[in-house]
Amino acid sequence: MASWQELAASHRNKRDAAIPREWVLPQDRLSQLSGAGTDGEGRLILLESIRRSGLLTDEEFAITEHHNATSLLRKISGNVLSSEAVTVAFCKRAALAQQLTSCLTEVFFQEAIDRAKWLDQYLQDNKTVVGPLHGLPISLKASDSFQVKGHHATLGYTASVSRQPSVENSALVQLLLDAGAVLYCKTNIPQTLMTADSENNIFGRTLNPHKTSLTAGGSSGGEGALVASRGSPLGVGTDIAGSIRIPSLCCGTYGFKPTSSRVPYGNQVPAPFTKMRFPGGITPCAGPLANSMEDLDLFMSTVIGKRPWKYDPTALDIDWRKIDFGHTKKLTVGVLAEDPEYPLMPPVKRALDEAVALLVQAGHNIVFLPADEASSPGLGGRLAGQFYGLAPSGYESKEEVTGEPKVKSVALGVHPYGKAGFPVDPELDLAHRVDSLAIARDDFARAWQHHWCDRDLDVVVAPGCNTTAVPYDTYGVPVYTMMWNLLDYPAGIIPFGKSSKAVDPNPRQAEGQFEADYNPDAWDGAPCAIQIIAPRFRDEECLAAMRIIDKDLNKS
Amino acid sequence: MASWQELAASHRNKRDAAIPREWVLPQDRLSQLSGAGTDGEGRLILLESIRRSGLLTDEEFAITEHHNATSLLRKISGNVLSSEAVTVAFCKRAALAQQLTSCLTEVFFQEAIDRAKWLDQYLQDNKTVVGPLHGLPISLKASDSFQVKGHHATLGYTASVSRQPSVENSALVQLLLDAGAVLYCKTNIPQTLMTADSENNIFGRTLNPHKTSLTAGGSSGGEGALVASRGSPLGVGTDIAGSIRIPSLCCGTYGFKPTSSRVPYGNQVPAPFTKMRFPGGITPCAGPLANSMEDLDLFMSTVIGKRPWKYDPTALDIDWRKIDFGHTKKLTVGVLAEDPEYPLMPPVKRALDEAVALLVQAGHNIVFLPADEASSPGLGGRLAGQFYGLAPSGYESKEEVTGEPKVKSVALGVHPYGKAGFPVDPELDLAHRVDSLAIARDDFARAWQHHWCDRDLDVVVAPGCNTTAVPYDTYGVPVYTMMWNLLDYPAGIIPFGKSSKAVDPNPRQAEGQFEADYNPDAWDGAPCAIQIIAPRFRDEECLAAMRIIDKDLNKS
Repeated sequence: MASWQELAASHRNKRDAAIPREWVLPQDRLSQLSGAGTDGEGRLILLESIRRSGLLTDEEFAITEHHNATSLLRKISGNVLSSEAVTVAFCKRAALAQQLTSCLTEVFFQEAIDRAKWLDQYLQDNKTVVGPLHGLPISLKASDSFQVKGHHATLGYTASVSRQPSVENSALVQLLLDAGAVLYCKTNIPQTLMTADSENNIFGRTLNPHKTSLTAGGSSGGEGALVASRGSPLGVGTDIAGSIRIPSLCCGTYGFKPTSSRVPYGNQVPAPFTKMRFPGGITPCAGPLANSMEDLDLFMSTVIGKRPWKYDPTALDIDWRKIDFGHTKKLTVGVLAEDPEYPLMPPVKRALDEAVALLVQAGHNIVFLPADEASSPGLGGRLAGQFYGLAPSGYESKEEVTGEPKVKSVALGVHPYGKAGFPVDPELDLAHRVDSLAIARDDFARAWQHHWCDRDLDVVVAPGCNTTAVPYDTYGVPVYTMMWNLLDYPAGIIPFGKSSKAVDPNPRQAEGQFEADYNPDAWDGAPCAIQIIAPRFRDEECLAAMRIIDKDLNKS
Repeated sequence: MASWQELAASHRNKRDAAIPREWVLPQDRLSQLSGAGTDGEGRLILLESIRRSGLLTDEEFAITEHHNATSLLRKISGNVLSSEAVTVAFCKRAALAQQLTSCLTEVFFQEAIDRAKWLDQYLQDNKTVVGPLHGLPISLKASDSFQVKGHHATLGYTASVSRQPSVENSALVQLLLDAGAVLYCKTNIPQTLMTADSENNIFGRTLNPHKTSLTAGGSSGGEGALVASRGSPLGVGTDIAGSIRIPSLCCGTYGFKPTSSRVPYGNQVPAPFTKMRFPGGITPCAGPLANSMEDLDLFMSTVIGKRPWKYDPTALDIDWRKIDFGHTKKLTVGVLAEDPEYPLMPPVKRALDEAVALLVQAGHNIVFLPADEASSPGLGGRLAGQFYGLAPSGYESKEEVTGEPKVKSVALGVHPYGKAGFPVDPELDLAHRVDSLAIARDDFARAWQHHWCDRDLDVVVAPGCNTTAVPYDTYGVPVYTMMWNLLDYPAGIIPFGKSSKAVDPNPRQAEGQFEADYNPDAWDGAPCAIQIIAPRFRDEECLAAMRIIDKDLNKS
C-alpha cells in the first residue's frame, strides 16, 4: 500500500494534469500577479490579478466578470452566448484561481466542455432548453454529499484517494444535470470538514483571494475562493456549523444555508464517511454561494422546483413558494444582541452598526433584541457542539487509515465546542444525553420563537462571526453561525464593506475575554458581511428580505 | 400514600360526579338499551340506543345526528343555533355514550357550557366570531399531548392521578381555544398507550359502539367510540403506530394521521411521561377523528391556518395549501400488495376489492403494486418496532410507581414488534443501532419513493389492518398502519362497508400463518374501512383524494 504522501502527490498531480498546459502560468509570473513584495501582496481581487494575467480574452473576461448566473442563463437560452463559450471562460478563470488560491480538488474541464457543446447542439436542434439551468457551469464542494460519477469524492483525506471514483451521481448532482447544468470542478475543504481553514494533506491550503495571508474560511473554503475570484458563477457548499456562510463572509460572496433537507443531501459517499449525521441531531444541508442575491434565488427556486424528493427520499417534499416583497415593503428587523463571551471585533461591529443605520434610513422597523442567556449565540453554539459529539465515530479516526498527520487547524482543536462548559452532562449515557439535548434545543427554539412572535419580526440581522477572515488557523468557535444550525433556521450572508486599519485602528474597549485579538494590519482589506436569518421553513421570506436589504445596503 | 385502587376509584368517582344526575340512567335501563339478551346485544349504533334512551330532545338529537362539524359552525356563526344549545346536546350525548361504552376520562361539561354562553354573547355583542371554530365542541384524547388547564392528563396510569392537574394548556389546546372551540371532555386510552385495547386500571375498558364485545381500538379508543356514537362532532387523537386510524377503522369513523409536526404536538406532560419520543425516531402526531371527510379537512386547514409554530416551536412552519381536485379528477391509485405474513381477513379483503372495483368503475387509474420485501408492511412494522424500542425508558416501568397490575392487552404483549426477527442487530450499542435503523429507514423510504415516482401515483389505497375490530385483547401487530408512521406519510381512514357472516362465512384459503383466526360470528357487524396514503408533506393531496374516493365509495 502506498504511503499517504504518495497517495496525496499522485492525486494532486492528476488534478494538475487536467488543467490545459496553455492555461498554466510559471511560478514567477504568479508571484508577480499576486503582488509579491509590494504593499498589496496577496490582494488578488484588488490587484485584478486574473485580468492582468492576460490569459482571458475580452469576451471571456466579460462573461466571467460582468454577468451573474441568471443573466448568463438568459444569454445562453437566447442564443446570445453559447454554453461552450461560457464554460470555457469559467474553466479558464477557475484554472487561474486554482493557481493563485489553490481552490480546486477535482478538475474535469474537458468533460464539461463536451457537455456544453452537446447542450448547444440540443438547443439548436430542439429550439428549447434541457432545463432551467441549461448550459450554466456550476462548481461543487468536494464533500461527501456531492458524488459525480467517474470522479473522486476525497473529503480531504488521503485514505479516500485509494477508493474508487464514484459510480453514481448524488441526488443533487443528478438534479442539477437534469436541469441542464454543466459541472466542471470540485473545490477544496478542510481535513475533517470541521474547521474554518480549508487545508488538507492532499490539496494543501486554499488562500483568501482578498488577501492570501488570511483564511478563505471553511469548510466550503474552495467554493468561497473560487466564487469570489469569479471562477464560478454559482457554487454549491454544505453547512452544519457555518460551512457555507463562513467562506462567504471570509471571501466576500453571498451565501445561503437553507432549512435542512429542502435541498437534497442524500446519496452520499457510504460510511464511514457519513457519520457526522446523527439522526435527530443537527442535519447538514447544501446551499449556494454566488456573487448576487439573484443567483441565490435562482439556485433555491430551481432546485426545489425540480421536486427534490423525487431524487432523494430524505429530502422534504415541500414546494418553493414564490415570495416577492416588492421594493416598497418595510421590514421589521430584529438585531441580534452581541454575546459578551464572543464580542464583536471592531470592523464586524462597525459593519453591523452601519447596516442597521442604513436600514433605519430606508424606513425599516428596527428592534434590538435583548441579550438573554436562553437565546444566546454562546448557548446555541455549546448545544450544537454537543450534538456534533453524538456521532458514533468522528472524522478524526480516519487519519489512522494512512497515518497522515492532522493539519494545524485540526491539531490545534480551534473548535472546542464545549469549552464554556457542557449544557448537558456529557457523562450521561447516550440515550439520556440525546433526550436532554433535544429538550434543551426545544427550550432554545422556544426562546427564539418568543423573540419572533412577540415582536412580529420578518428577519433578524446578525454578524456572521465575531471576526472577519483571520490569519491561518486562528478562526474561533463560530457560534454566530452554529446557533442557526441548531435551530435549523435559514440564514444567509450579504457582503457589506471591508475591514480597514485606517477606520478601525484600535481594539474595542469591550469587557470580557477576546476570542481572537484584533490585528488591524492583518485584517485590513478583509471583507465584512452581515447575516440575515428567518424562522425554519421561511427560506422564501429570508431570501426576499435579503434582496431588499442588499439593495438598501449595497445599492445593487 | 393511597393504593392504586383508591387512586383509581377516587378519580373515576370524580368523573362520574361531573355528569349531571338527570343524564344518568339506571343500570337496568342501560342493559335494555344495549339489547342485552337479544340477538343484537351490544350493537348500540344499529339499535339506536342513544335515541331510544329518550334523554335527548328532538333538537338535541338533530344537532348531534344530522349535522357535521362544518355545518354546525355555519349554523352557529349564522345565529341559527347557539353554541350553548350545541354544547349541551353534545355533552348530553357524550354522557350517554360514556354510560354505554365507557369512553370518557375527564368531564368538564359545566365549564364548556359556560364558555359556550360566553361565545354566544361575544357573537351577539361583536357581530363576529372569535375564530373559525367559534362555538364548536371538540373532544380530546387523554394523552400526554393534550393538557387542559385545571384538568388531569392521566395517561391511563393510576400514578398520574396523584399529580396536580395541568397548570397550562398544551399548544394545540390553546390554538383550538383561540380558534373558538369549546372543550368539554377527554377520552379513554390504553395503559401504556401502546395497545389497540383502550383499557386501563382507572377507567376500565372502552367498548365498541358497533358491537360491545369488540375492541374500540386504541390508543385513541375513547375518541373512536365517542365520535362513532356522535357524542362528539370532532375528536382529536394521536398516532405513533396507528392510534388514530385503528380506533377509526374499529369504530367506523373517518380519521387522519397527518405528516408529523404539522399539527402542534408540543407542551406535553413533563417527563417521565414523554419518553416515547426518541429524537430522530418516529414522531407521534395529532390528528382528527370525525364523521365526514369535510370535517377532517376543517380540522387540518383550521389548525394549520393558525400557524402552529407560533404556539409550539417544534411544529413545522409550513402553510396549508388549498387543494381542490374538483369532482372530475381521475386519480392514479396504487393498491398496496398484501403481505403474506399478515394476510387480509375475508371482510377486509372484500372491502378492499370492492373499493378497487368502484374506483375502476369511477374511471380512476388503478395500479397494483408489487409485493416486494423492501417495501412490505412487515418490514415497515419491524423497523418501526425497533425505533419504538430506542426510547430510554418505556411506559412499562411506570406501573411500578403504584404497583398497579398490567391490563390484559399489555400483559399479553400483543405487540411483539420484533417477532419476525429484528431487521437491525438489537445487540448493537445504541449509537450504531440508531445509525443502522436510520439507514434502513432511508432504504425503505427509497423503495416507496420508487413505487410512487415510477408510476406517478396520486395516492395508495390499502387496508388499515388485516382485521376489523376483533374481540378484546386479540388485535394483532398493526403493520399496515405502522409502516406509514415509519415513513411519516399522511394516511387516512374511510369507513366502507361491514363485516358480515352471511357474505363471508368462511376463512380465506390463504397460505401461511394467520395472525388472528377469522371468526365470522364474532366479527359480524364490525365496520370495514380502507386506508388512503400520500407521500410525506402531501397531506393536502391526501385529503383531496380521500374526498373524491369517499364520494365514489360511499356516495356521500
